[in-house]
This record gives sequence, C-alpha cells and structure tokens, in this order.
Amino acid sequence: MKSHTEYFTFNTKQKRELVHLTPRLEEVLQRSKVEEGFMLVSAMHITAGVFVNDNESGLHEDIWKWLEGLAPFREEYRHHLTGEDNGDAHLKSLLIHHEVIVPITKGKLDLGTWQRVFYAEFDGQRSKRLIVKVLGE
Amino acid sequence: MKSHTEYFTFNTKQKRELVHLTPRLEEVLQRSKVEEGFMLVSAMHITAGVFVNDNESGLHEDIWKWLEGLAPFREEYRHHLTGEDNGDAHLKSLLIHHEVIVPITKGKLDLGTWQRVFYAEFDGQRSKRLIVKVLGE
Amino acid sequence: MKSHTEYFTFNTKQKRELVHLTPRLEEVLQRSKVEEGFMLVSAMHITAGVFVNDNESGLHEDIWKWLEGLAPFREEYRHHLTGEDNGDAHLKSLLIHHEVIVPITKGKLDLGTWQRVFYAEFDGQRSKRLIVKVLGE
Repeated sequence: MKSHTEYFTFNTKQKRELVHLTPRLEEVLQRSKVEEGFMLVSAMHITAGVFVNDNESGLHEDIWKWLEGLAPFREEYRHHLTGEDNGDAHLKSLLIHHEVIVPITKGKLDLGTWQRVFYAEFDGQRSKRLIVKVLGE
Repeated sequence: MKSHTEYFTFNTKQKRELVHLTPRLEEVLQRSKVEEGFMLVSAMHITAGVFVNDNESGLHEDIWKWLEGLAPFREEYRHHLTGEDNGDAHLKSLLIHHEVIVPITKGKLDLGTWQRVFYAEFDGQRSKRLIVKVLGE
Repeated sequence: MKSHTEYFTFNTKQKRELVHLTPRLEEVLQRSKVEEGFMLVSAMHITAGVFVNDNESGLHEDIWKWLEGLAPFREEYRHHLTGEDNGDAHLKSLLIHHEVIVPITKGKLDLGTWQRVFYAEFDGQRSKRLIVKVLGE
C-alpha cells in the first residue's frame, strides 16, 4: 500500500472565490505513483468547501447566487457574538461540503468528461489550507 | 491490497428518476473479493447524485419536492446562456452530493438496517455513467 | 494494509442533539495502530448525520435554526403516511450528509485547527448506531 500527502495554501484575493484544483491534483497524483486508489481532497477550514462540478463561469455565478440564497450573510447569527462575522461561511461550507474523494484508475483521476474539482473559499483574504491525501497501490 | 472497479451506465426513462443501487453494489462487492475496505459509489456526471437513505416511495416523493424547492428549475440561470437548460440539475447534484463511501466489513456492505444507496438522475433520458470502486483487502 | 472497525451507540436525551465525536475518534485511531490512511465516520441511520465544523455553541444554534429553515418539520410529508413523523429528519440527514472521511497522517487525525467531527441526531431518544472504520497502514 502507498500513501502520499500534500498540503496547499490559498490566500484568495476575494473573500469568496473558486479555485480550480484539477491540474494540481493531477500533479499530486503523478508524484504519489499510485495507480489504483482514492484521493481525498479536503479543506482544513470550517469556512471553505470542496466540490466537483462543471468548469463553466455562468454556472459558477449561479452557484454563488444559490449559496447566498440558502446560506445568506446575516448580522444576527449567534456565532457573531464571538466577534466573528463569518457565520454564513460556516453554513455554506456545510451545504457544499468540505471534501470529496476522487477515484484513481490506471494512474489517472477517474473523473467524468465534465467533472472538475474546485476549492470554494467562503472567508478568504487570509491563509487557508487544503489537504490532498492519496491511498492505494 | 485489492482494488476493483466497475462502471454502470444508466439511461433513465424520466428526466428525473431514482435508481436503487444496493443489489448491484452487493454483486460488485462479491466480484471484488474484498472483505474489509471502502466502496466508493460516485456519479461521473455533474447533473446526477448518489445518496444513502430509505427505500420508501412516499419519502422519495418528499425528497423530489424538497429538491425542487431548494434548487428549482429557473429559466434565468446564467448557465443557460451556453444553450443548456439544466442549471437546476447542477445545483441539485451539489445539494445531494455526487458520491458516497460504503464501508465493507466481513465481505458485506456494512449499512444500517434501513440504509440503501440510490443514484439520483437530475437530467436523464440519455446515457450517464457511475463508477463503483472498491479498495481493501 | 490494516483495517479497524468500531461501532458506537447513541441514545440522546433530546430528539435533536449534537454529539462531539473527536476525542472518541482519537481513541479509535490509537487502537487501530494506523499511521497513514482514512477514517470513515458514518451514521448507520437515515435520520442522522455526521459533519465537520467548529465546536462553538453559538454556531451550533445557528446550524439548528438553518437546518430547520431548509428542511423543516411538516405534517404533510408523504413519508408520514407510513405512520412515521420524522420526514424532516430524513431531509436534514441528506442536507448535512451522513458521513465524513478524516485523513490520518503520522498516526494523528489530520484535521485543521478548528475542525471537529460531530454526530447530528435528528430523531433521537432511541438507540442509534455509528460506524467508524479505519483503513491504512
């Protein structure tokens, strides 16, 4: 069995931003030398997410609008009594989810034609970490 | 370590449809000969999902109504400027999620009494793929 | 390859309750003797969830309120024609998701500084099971 772990750090320019991860994940996979296995891609923060969907800018606008509708910024979150103002980012993270597993087959990310992996930053403009861990053979 | 990969293709009669996967997954597990491990069940499309819940038709109606409420069809999605009309299917996929991991213990899917695995088609009537990948020993 | 499986049973005092799992998961990891791998933490019921977020009581109140807003109790769920009254618990489980994978690195749960794992009970006051399965080396 092989395992391989890498960490990425993001410091996005915008408070809310998507980062397309797929090319970096392909590089991690190459370095791992795993041919058959699973790749976990997981945000290490509770105000960020990871998801798989289409790399289409119009859809990304739809996703942001949809997230804001279902997990909106609100002044009155109880969490803000701690001095934070990012309650919505926690809820957006729960909605989108903070991790995905990508299957690895014959040394490739075994994604469908249109599937791409994204890091979703909900409270950026500061240093945030992501773990990529490959397990297999 | 053993790994075993199979692909299923669905071409649902309805645009939106649930497919109960558990019996097929049990067959995949048998063929994999894995006794202890994880089974990844993952849609290879960005307009479909996979989830674990009850095999009860009334609940399934509730789930469809709920999904339509939280991720409704809308003409005005930006994604539709590409010529597509399935923006809601992308959002439903994000909401339900596109994959699950099923634990395997003593050669069985280690699910709770009422847990069943479903493929959720949000934009069907065409050929769509699912990957099932087993990793273990 | 090593694998290690444990089951926990919860019988919460409240119908809806969060249980902080991280300390128990650290103990499971110690017993597993796995240094590099994945830990699956998965509810074995369709009316419960598992998620990763902050251990902050104000935020937990926000999460409950948010869940009730997006997946509310309603008398009229079709599922209730079976005699059940927990339709909302199924939808809350789908929204929060029933499982997470925690990466294991150098014999530790490889979580970010503020990441903690929670069991979310949506229909408690009875015996409910959770599986924790570790795979690695």
